[in-house]
Amino acid sequence: MPHDIALLGAGRIGRIHAANLMAQPELCLRYVADASPGVAEALARSCGAQVATVDAVLGDPDVAGVIIATSTDTHLDLALRAHAAGKAIFCEKPVDLDLGRAVAAASDLAEARLFVGFNRRFDPSFAALERRLRAGELGKLETLQIVSNDPAPPPIDYVARSGGLFKDMTIHDFDMARFLLGDEPVEVFAWGSCLVDPAIGGAGDIDTARVMLKTANGAICTIANSRRSGFGYDQRIEAFCSGGMISADNVTETTLRLWRQDGATGPALQNFFLERYAAAFRAEMAHFADVVTGRAQPMARFADGIAALALADAAARSMATNAPVRLDRA
Amino acid sequence: MPHDIALLGAGRIGRIHAANLMAQPELCLRYVADASPGVAEALARSCGAQVATVDAVLGDPDVAGVIIATSTDTHLDLALRAHAAGKAIFCEKPVDLDLGRAVAAASDLAEARLFVGFNRRFDPSFAALERRLRAGELGKLETLQIVSNDPAPPPIDYVARSGGLFKDMTIHDFDMARFLLGDEPVEVFAWGSCLVDPAIGGAGDIDTARVMLKTANGAICTIANSRRSGFGYDQRIEAFCSGGMISADNVTETTLRLWRQDGATGPALQNFFLERYAAAFRAEMAHFADVVTGRAQPMARFADGIAALALADAAARSMATNAPVRLDRA
Amino acid sequence: MPHDIALLGAGRIGRIHAANLMAQPELCLRYVADASPGVAEALARSCGAQVATVDAVLGDPDVAGVIIATSTDTHLDLALRAHAAGKAIFCEKPVDLDLGRAVAAASDLAEARLFVGFNRRFDPSFAALERRLRAGELGKLETLQIVSNDPAPPPIDYVARSGGLFKDMTIHDFDMARFLLGDEPVEVFAWGSCLVDPAIGGAGDIDTARVMLKTANGAICTIANSRRSGFGYDQRIEAFCSGGMISADNVTETTLRLWRQDGATGPALQNFFLERYAAAFRAEMAHFADVVTGRAQPMARFADGIAALALADAAARSMATNAPVRLDRA
Amino acid sequence: MPHDIALLGAGRIGRIHAANLMAQPELCLRYVADASPGVAEALARSCGAQVATVDAVLGDPDVAGVIIATSTDTHLDLALRAHAAGKAIFCEKPVDLDLGRAVAAASDLAEARLFVGFNRRFDPSFAALERRLRAGELGKLETLQIVSNDPAPPPIDYVARSGGLFKDMTIHDFDMARFLLGDEPVEVFAWGSCLVDPAIGGAGDIDTARVMLKTANGAICTIANSRRSGFGYDQRIEAFCSGGMISADNVTETTLRLWRQDGATGPALQNFFLERYAAAFRAEMAHFADVVTGRAQPMARFADGIAALALADAAARSMATNAPVRLDRA
Repeated sequence: MPHDIALLGAGRIGRIHAANLMAQPELCLRYVADASPGVAEALARSCGAQVATVDAVLGDPDVAGVIIATSTDTHLDLALRAHAAGKAIFCEKPVDLDLGRAVAAASDLAEARLFVGFNRRFDPSFAALERRLRAGELGKLETLQIVSNDPAPPPIDYVARSGGLFKDMTIHDFDMARFLLGDEPVEVFAWGSCLVDPAIGGAGDIDTARVMLKTANGAICTIANSRRSGFGYDQRIEAFCSGGMISADNVTETTLRLWRQDGATGPALQNFFLERYAAAFRAEMAHFADVVTGRAQPMARFADGIAALALADAAARSMATNAPVRLDRA
Repeated sequence: MPHDIALLGAGRIGRIHAANLMAQPELCLRYVADASPGVAEALARSCGAQVATVDAVLGDPDVAGVIIATSTDTHLDLALRAHAAGKAIFCEKPVDLDLGRAVAAASDLAEARLFVGFNRRFDPSFAALERRLRAGELGKLETLQIVSNDPAPPPIDYVARSGGLFKDMTIHDFDMARFLLGDEPVEVFAWGSCLVDPAIGGAGDIDTARVMLKTANGAICTIANSRRSGFGYDQRIEAFCSGGMISADNVTETTLRLWRQDGATGPALQNFFLERYAAAFRAEMAHFADVVTGRAQPMARFADGIAALALADAAARSMATNAPVRLDRA
Repeated sequence: MPHDIALLGAGRIGRIHAANLMAQPELCLRYVADASPGVAEALARSCGAQVATVDAVLGDPDVAGVIIATSTDTHLDLALRAHAAGKAIFCEKPVDLDLGRAVAAASDLAEARLFVGFNRRFDPSFAALERRLRAGELGKLETLQIVSNDPAPPPIDYVARSGGLFKDMTIHDFDMARFLLGDEPVEVFAWGSCLVDPAIGGAGDIDTARVMLKTANGAICTIANSRRSGFGYDQRIEAFCSGGMISADNVTETTLRLWRQDGATGPALQNFFLERYAAAFRAEMAHFADVVTGRAQPMARFADGIAALALADAAARSMATNAPVRLDRA
Repeated sequence: MPHDIALLGAGRIGRIHAANLMAQPELCLRYVADASPGVAEALARSCGAQVATVDAVLGDPDVAGVIIATSTDTHLDLALRAHAAGKAIFCEKPVDLDLGRAVAAASDLAEARLFVGFNRRFDPSFAALERRLRAGELGKLETLQIVSNDPAPPPIDYVARSGGLFKDMTIHDFDMARFLLGDEPVEVFAWGSCLVDPAIGGAGDIDTARVMLKTANGAICTIANSRRSGFGYDQRIEAFCSGGMISADNVTETTLRLWRQDGATGPALQNFFLERYAAAFRAEMAHFADVVTGRAQPMARFADGIAALALADAAARSMATNAPVRLDRA
């Protein structure tokens, strides 16, 4: 018998999760909840699910797990309530925009069967990179270079509500750095510029950043971010080890190349995160099935969500003070 | 309202088509038929469809289209009956193993809303190659080089019933050659060898082939085939034009590379046709939706199925006589 | 003490050899001979060498070796005379345009310290391919695919005197096929077309060809030739083995790539044979130093020159008769 | 008539320059000077040059130019004397290890026909990158990413005398950053670690570094350095512009790839700077011919040598203080 699942939030990412859920034979989408009843209704109908309130969902003992794909400011509250109701939880990132609030919830959620939607951990190339690194095939990791450029900037009102580039965009790279470094960063340094669009600066944000992280053993990670690459969704990682380097390159739309006198033109990069990380979103849902059935522990726990947020916070302070920021460890 | 579709044949490829059909909002899988009732039942249940006989399917006026995914020897008969019943038809390749039988049915099926499952025409890279070629971006096509090597040979009893390498494997490449050349081949020359496994030779077949096709205007196409590449599913095309070359390269599992002192090791090729052509199978079903709803004419008609079969037949005769074979044109 | 060398022929390829010779500390360019005294004089002066007649060169006992870089019709006579005079010989390809004449000289030159300038054997990538193949790293060689397209056709009067595409251009590929196959071709099939320039057809030649070779054990080699690639000097080889494939790809001018929204444009291919095979020409001269000093046996003997010529001859007959041609073996 | 040139310093790099000089028809190597007479004698003999003292060289009015390839501590003095003697000067980098001394000589050498041997500016790929960037093909440069990893660390006594990683290794990258940014860095931040070999730390140096530069307009450059890549000489640049990205990738020894079931292994990177930058060293000498003959102004003047040194100095201070360092502009 498949396990009943409820989807909270039927927006763009919620609909992706619904489609991937239907491909998991062990999971069944039973309920859809959304602040907008019409949105919930449309998705529910096409999936053979029912519209329900959050209260009803959490109160139904048959619901084994919930997917939290609502707006960021509700993530924390919903996670706490779902955990209290004994549900397995797939919570979209970030866990919250406010580090203090998230830290306050940390002990309550420490043991939750909760998994944060850091989708890049599930990308086939990045996941393989982590496995090869962990296996030590090329020796000890020394430095890490993460390039993470969006194809084009989001609408300016999105930027204004985003929490800033570090919490909205670099948050993925902070999690990836932690995922790959195998050791906690102890120091952060960040520079940011507004080079892409003055309106972003006008909204109090930056659109271009370089962040450096250092671990206690001296390993260094650099993160390169831009809101606009000009050549598609640029997502690459290089891990320099004592015995060589492991790289994960961009993904292209096709394998076509046109060879002319002045050089060969290759295919465009996959341009959009839904396309680039389609396989990752499918793998996330397979992991959720593993968590719901108890076959696996959550790959990215609530504490990982906090740790990424803490790095974003430290980067913002480093940029503001133009000085390295040390991270306090309890 | 979605259009009701019946699936004839619930084997491996049938199940792929069923899953892709469920992602088409305009199509609804209503019936599943299979020579083995248990097989039909299992698939029907997981898809919310009903088991039915072919007669019942063809007799139901609500069925708008059928997918013929049965064994090859039944393709022709089912296509004729489905066409007579007024259905849109998605027929797996080859249309038949016997050229004479297929030709005999040609006039009956000439106007059928029938589309042959030459999946490679729907591969994003090969489809893009055809579009760029047709747009004339690099001038006139002069020569074509198709490499099409399987990762590993099929079981020997499959080989024995396959109709031979030219009808079973090269048939895809003959269709691709016709798709891309934009002009009919008028002459065929083929060499075959048994280099991979003597058991294949023992079954009267070859496992390695090189075929050349020539069109009336002197354009030449070479096809390279092996039942075993030793390095994954090797599917590449190069189109040499007056102004340069268009190539479509292999597809890899990830973008990972391990850089060591003696060179970088890249990712494995996608190894299996279901994986390599997953996007093509999805696109086929989208095309079937277009055909069922009347938005598009079939991309590969029955006559295309015959033409590929005729080339396979000619290649076999060329190999047998060690001489070029001219194709008769009415 | 360096060994004195004489250069016969001070044209384009002769000047290349002179420059490479000056980089060999064991060889010293003593004499330059050319049908045009002014041409010889200019090269001799810039190299600190003297102008001399062929008779004088061959009569000087201090001359250890001669480089034959004269027009093709003189190669055979000069090689016979230089061998009779006891010189080590670096003879440009082809050994002659007439197979009968070349065969007649075969026994005289069988033991000559003569090395034919099949420069591609010395290309770092192709030489490495041969070594890896010979080492059996990927198992037994089954099929070979040679792509060898010139960037643009030569002047029409060159074409008219060239001996035809098979002897002028494919001759390199026939030698490469023999070098890599490790087994003699026993059968040849060739198709040719005139697709690039009707003037080439008017001169009685073709500009586009596909040739297939088969060895006694069933291995097949295909050769693709065009007088005009439209995208630079296209020189590639793929060797399909029982355990995988070894490929040698094209060489580009730089490693630059421009990444834009619609794809990345890579660098142009090296466009000219002098540029593409610069390292090979240097390696040829190092091999000549080895032959002159007795450290090595010639890598490509006179018999290899004849064998390539015989394949060119057979290809021409195959094209003329549109039938495979078997090669007689004594 | 060729111009007479004197080579000061007949060590490894001096011999490279001598060989490249012989390929320049307008230059003639007349004198070789070296602290070790035997070393000078051996090189002079093989080049048809004479051994001479520095005094004799500078006193000979026929000497048009000198190449300073001596030990670093003598560069400045020799440059000043050669300039006073009216010679064109090709001076190896760095101009000095001491910024104060170099600055003191700046006004004397401001107008010198002196060119600093920043070889990477002459690399075909990096030079092309600069041209494309300057042409504005992809819009305005926003960020720059330079990766510059040596294959393996030098001997420890070399490290001890090197002036430290920033002056010995990053100096090239500082010059490249200035060459490409088109705007002066105004701020530097650097982190260094000793991860490769504790003996390097014992010698007071680091072996791994990440440096960030910022220009007045907010453009950011990151530099990644390691004394040991483990996979050859890793020299890459990525220039992110408003309209896309321009990259220059590594150079491999061959184009060979071995394709196996688990992925394709590509060729090794060129492993040594003399091999990797062979074309750059040839182009440097062609530039020197242009400078000697007055056809071109020096591409990298003494002031460029000072500017790179100042950045190295600032990076060392940043690392020592763990704080960004602003560069004073007069």
